[in-house]
Amino acid sequence: MTTFAEATAVRPAEGGFLADLDPRWAVGDKLHGGYLLAVLGRAVSAVGGGHAYPVAVTASFLRPPAAGPATVSVTLLREGRTTAQYRASLVQDRQVCVEALVTQGALDDAAPWWTAAEAPEMPGEDDCVLLPADSPGSPFRVHILDVVEHRLDPSSLGFAMGQPSPAGRTAAWLRLADGSEWDPLSLLVALDPAPPISLVLGVKGWAPTVSLTAYLRRLPAPGPLRVTMQAAEITSGRMDETAMAWDAKGNLVAQATQLAAIRH
Amino acid sequence: MTTFAEATAVRPAEGGFLADLDPRWAVGDKLHGGYLLAVLGRAVSAVGGGHAYPVAVTASFLRPPAAGPATVSVTLLREGRTTAQYRASLVQDRQVCVEALVTQGALDDAAPWWTAAEAPEMPGEDDCVLLPADSPGSPFRVHILDVVEHRLDPSSLGFAMGQPSPAGRTAAWLRLADGSEWDPLSLLVALDPAPPISLVLGVKGWAPTVSLTAYLRRLPAPGPLRVTMQAAEITSGRMDETAMAWDAKGNLVAQATQLAAIRH
Repeated sequence: MTTFAEATAVRPAEGGFLADLDPRWAVGDKLHGGYLLAVLGRAVSAVGGGHAYPVAVTASFLRPPAAGPATVSVTLLREGRTTAQYRASLVQDRQVCVEALVTQGALDDAAPWWTAAEAPEMPGEDDCVLLPADSPGSPFRVHILDVVEHRLDPSSLGFAMGQPSPAGRTAAWLRLADGSEWDPLSLLVALDPAPPISLVLGVKGWAPTVSLTAYLRRLPAPGPLRVTMQAAEITSGRMDETAMAWDAKGNLVAQATQLAAIRH
Repeated sequence: MTTFAEATAVRPAEGGFLADLDPRWAVGDKLHGGYLLAVLGRAVSAVGGGHAYPVAVTASFLRPPAAGPATVSVTLLREGRTTAQYRASLVQDRQVCVEALVTQGALDDAAPWWTAAEAPEMPGEDDCVLLPADSPGSPFRVHILDVVEHRLDPSSLGFAMGQPSPAGRTAAWLRLADGSEWDPLSLLVALDPAPPISLVLGVKGWAPTVSLTAYLRRLPAPGPLRVTMQAAEITSGRMDETAMAWDAKGNLVAQATQLAAIRH
């Protein structure tokens, strides 16, 4: 068992930071997109400007990196009074695998000034279904489910019984299996939950992320997250997915959109 | 009157492309974020890889550029069979003002394979309210409304009569005032419509975009767009906004999310 903190650790090295990408934070042999964002975010935080947390992160996924050593380079683009903006690149074998734009700033746990994002009504954790990393008929092992427990609302589960739902939505409780509480970097993993909406709609196979954008809104309270994901449309081989995450107090803590390629 | 094509024109120059930023595509003296994205997109398209259209664009807004000359530099990050990914930077006075990640690919007008994004019901254009560039009490002129006609659903208009709506949503018909039809680059402007949701909620003042992400989904049919914008939460001085745009045939053509800074 590797903890989230261990799996995303970086240390200063020539050209930036050295990371050791962990094969357990993966779907099949493809490292998880949210996990790679978290490694990039760890390196940006390690640069140690006065701005503690990522508040907006976008990554272009260029080439899937392999598990093992990778370098993260970080470039400061602008430092202001309330935010700092960076470019960060994950490099392996001298090729950029992921390039990201990261805005760092302050986060707190204050009540919202205004919100339209009420936490979703869903069955309790015990009445939801823990997703297995191995499932019959899956062409690959979903290793990330060993390290991030997903308890899926049974109403999202039709696909697993061969009865895809046309709603294009999932809802789940998420916990880190290492027992640690959610923090702004691990929230980046939670914003890219399993399964992809394409699978829920009955499209088998991998849905590689082209671009993922995450906004961190609040420091999460201890306890499990509620995470919903909704697609708007699948067309011309591309799907959008919007994820929202609420903490155990029912406050919105993070949200994301991604564009993924699918073969339908 | 400058057309959209003229306002976003670029020509090859040392270090990339030269653009002449047009003060009419602005809110007060701040150039419009979607317009700046369109200039960056024009330069990426001018590089002339085999991938015709932007499909995913994210920009970090670092410093507001002034109207007038600016340079756009474009770096190819990866060229694949179906997409190419670029970094593009808008530079003025040797400082990067906007840095973007752009994925180029193919777009068509095929029917969606699956959609949950039905076009919104709203009154016809003649029953909506054309927003003026000058309005009583506004601290600045919203020049962009001279070049992009916004006809707002009257149900979104309470803020203008001093009666903010708590829904945090707007819906409008948009047309280019130069009479040209929407295309993938001008859609980038439509995805950052006026007014900001903060104003609809009663918060006066500028809401500068920190980061904006747009996904282009389909080639638009001729005719006006329907554009909705919805915020999820305003907290800790930041607001998210999600925009969706449908063409005159009622098909989803583009969507965007942005994170903006506000003083509430």
